[in-house]
Amino acid sequence: MPVATQASVKSLTPSETWDTGAQILLANAYHLSLRPGIKTIYRMGGLHSFMGWDGPILTDSGGYQVYSLGGLVRISDQGIHFKSHIDGSPRFLSPEESIRDQEDLGSDIAMVLDQCIGYQPVNQIVRDAMDRTHVWAKRSLAAHSRKDQALFGIVQGGVDLNLRSESVKILTSMGFDGYATGGLGVGESKDQLYWVAAQTASWLPVEQPRYLMGSGSPEDLVEAVNSGYDLFDCSLPTRVARNGGIYRSDKRFDITTAQFKFDDGPLEQGCDCIVCQTFSAGYVHHLFKARELLGYRLATIHNLRFFHRLMDQIRESILQDRFQLYREAFWGTHTPVQEPQPSRGVDDQY
Amino acid sequence: MPVATQASVKSLTPSETWDTGAQILLANAYHLSLRPGIKTIYRMGGLHSFMGWDGPILTDSGGYQVYSLGGLVRISDQGIHFKSHIDGSPRFLSPEESIRDQEDLGSDIAMVLDQCIGYQPVNQIVRDAMDRTHVWAKRSLAAHSRKDQALFGIVQGGVDLNLRSESVKILTSMGFDGYATGGLGVGESKDQLYWVAAQTASWLPVEQPRYLMGSGSPEDLVEAVNSGYDLFDCSLPTRVARNGGIYRSDKRFDITTAQFKFDDGPLEQGCDCIVCQTFSAGYVHHLFKARELLGYRLATIHNLRFFHRLMDQIRESILQDRFQLYREAFWGTHTPVQEPQPSRGVDDQY
Repeated sequence: MPVATQASVKSLTPSETWDTGAQILLANAYHLSLRPGIKTIYRMGGLHSFMGWDGPILTDSGGYQVYSLGGLVRISDQGIHFKSHIDGSPRFLSPEESIRDQEDLGSDIAMVLDQCIGYQPVNQIVRDAMDRTHVWAKRSLAAHSRKDQALFGIVQGGVDLNLRSESVKILTSMGFDGYATGGLGVGESKDQLYWVAAQTASWLPVEQPRYLMGSGSPEDLVEAVNSGYDLFDCSLPTRVARNGGIYRSDKRFDITTAQFKFDDGPLEQGCDCIVCQTFSAGYVHHLFKARELLGYRLATIHNLRFFHRLMDQIRESILQDRFQLYREAFWGTHTPVQEPQPSRGVDDQY
Repeated sequence: MPVATQASVKSLTPSETWDTGAQILLANAYHLSLRPGIKTIYRMGGLHSFMGWDGPILTDSGGYQVYSLGGLVRISDQGIHFKSHIDGSPRFLSPEESIRDQEDLGSDIAMVLDQCIGYQPVNQIVRDAMDRTHVWAKRSLAAHSRKDQALFGIVQGGVDLNLRSESVKILTSMGFDGYATGGLGVGESKDQLYWVAAQTASWLPVEQPRYLMGSGSPEDLVEAVNSGYDLFDCSLPTRVARNGGIYRSDKRFDITTAQFKFDDGPLEQGCDCIVCQTFSAGYVHHLFKARELLGYRLATIHNLRFFHRLMDQIRESILQDRFQLYREAFWGTHTPVQEPQPSRGVDDQY
């Protein structure tokens, strides 16, 4: 899912996003509640109509966003008291309000409000956040009334497999339409992330969608699919693009470096995206150096097409029963980028 | 001509620009000489290939841009010594260099290098700048060798009709492919601009293109066409768009004001642009408030379509011999915006 946090995949029209192979978008109920406001979108005919996207939309509840606010937040069993990152005004979010917001937005998949915490050793804080997430999940389920909207539960429990296992048991006993693994990618190592995600997936029902939240590098996708995940949200292709980072099957590169000044070939040889069919790497390089808005856009289109093509290839290899060969070949040719630790800040996370 | 100063109509792809009705673009040899460099574009196959625009391109020489640099400039008969607005490096531009640059860019229409000055009373400075422009025009003509590229002369002479008349006589005796009226829109009143532009046009040969440089509000276009001008460059639709200004047949409005928050109608009723066919004014309002890049783009598309539709209507009314009726109706329904005086600065002029 490309992210359309504020009801727009940054710099692209819906039809352009569709043309990259996108089937579903992620929007953020927290961001939209602050701007333009849920009621505004409701009055404008709901989120699909508002942003002009006919395909499915998943809305995140904002648990992770509120966690990212850091010190501006006070959490109780009732819900979350926080200050708007836009104007500092005091706000309150409860499981019931989050469900009502997402029902008013009219997304196809709603997420329960969960309590996210940063990476930390196994301790009471992790258990308390998990327990509260379960209580909130139950209240979300009770508050949810739209029959045309799926509701997903979110598994928490940090990096403790016992807690994760318990969380899966409790949530699956409530009966959601799908399950997400949340609370990862918050400071633990990649190995820990992959291990906890894989174990959690193995306990989740196979016949329902499994969604790994917040993971989305090429290697994350390959490993998470290997663990059984079906759904991902991914700010990387779009955010990295706006900083000049271009994905290619072997590695990611920086289009702003001087070596591309005279490059009259495409961003990636053999890429079927409209950018690689039309413009040279040298021109995209120029657009970034000259800070032309078109540059951000062209890089975004290429990166989204790259990620959707990767998923196409993964799907095809699964259907042809050769995913493990695909995965081996992928690791043999692909150099991962060392991403910095996720920052605590609202604006750059999606 | 929409402006593609740095080889990009800001935020749009060439095909989107084409779809707004654009037939020819303006690029700036001065800007391109600084970044990415003329030789870069030459090595990349010329400007059309570099930016992916198959239609005609007019390149401006940079006389006006250098004038905008203000104190960073020293002008002699030889040419213009100036400092790059990007890195402060010393540069030199002569009529011959400007022609060579524009030939290397491969534009369809090149402009002679002229000496621009700000608005001032009739005095020796105006005459000297005009005389120098004539000397440079002659040298440009001598240096020009590409047979597949038109070369336009630029009439100067400030607001003095005697000087303007003299400038027309001298330039037409040299024999250019077309003629531009330059040095207006630099501080004189709109009435003065229209009057001097109209008188100058009346002396220029009817069978060759007449180009009024730097004018481009809706009312400028109607009045300049009335005076006989054929060609205009226009930063307004794109620059204004990026600041939330939306053109409509009756007036220009600011999409960022609160009244548009719940507006589920198009930016302009009856507009045939892709934006008005697809998105609501309320959504564009949200994109601007949220500083989403898509907003700049949607506003730009609408405004360019507005200007090209205006020119379509003007052309049609001329062909149907009812332009004066069209002009009267235009003034009866259109409220001009009081533009601020042009600023001296390189980045915002186009």
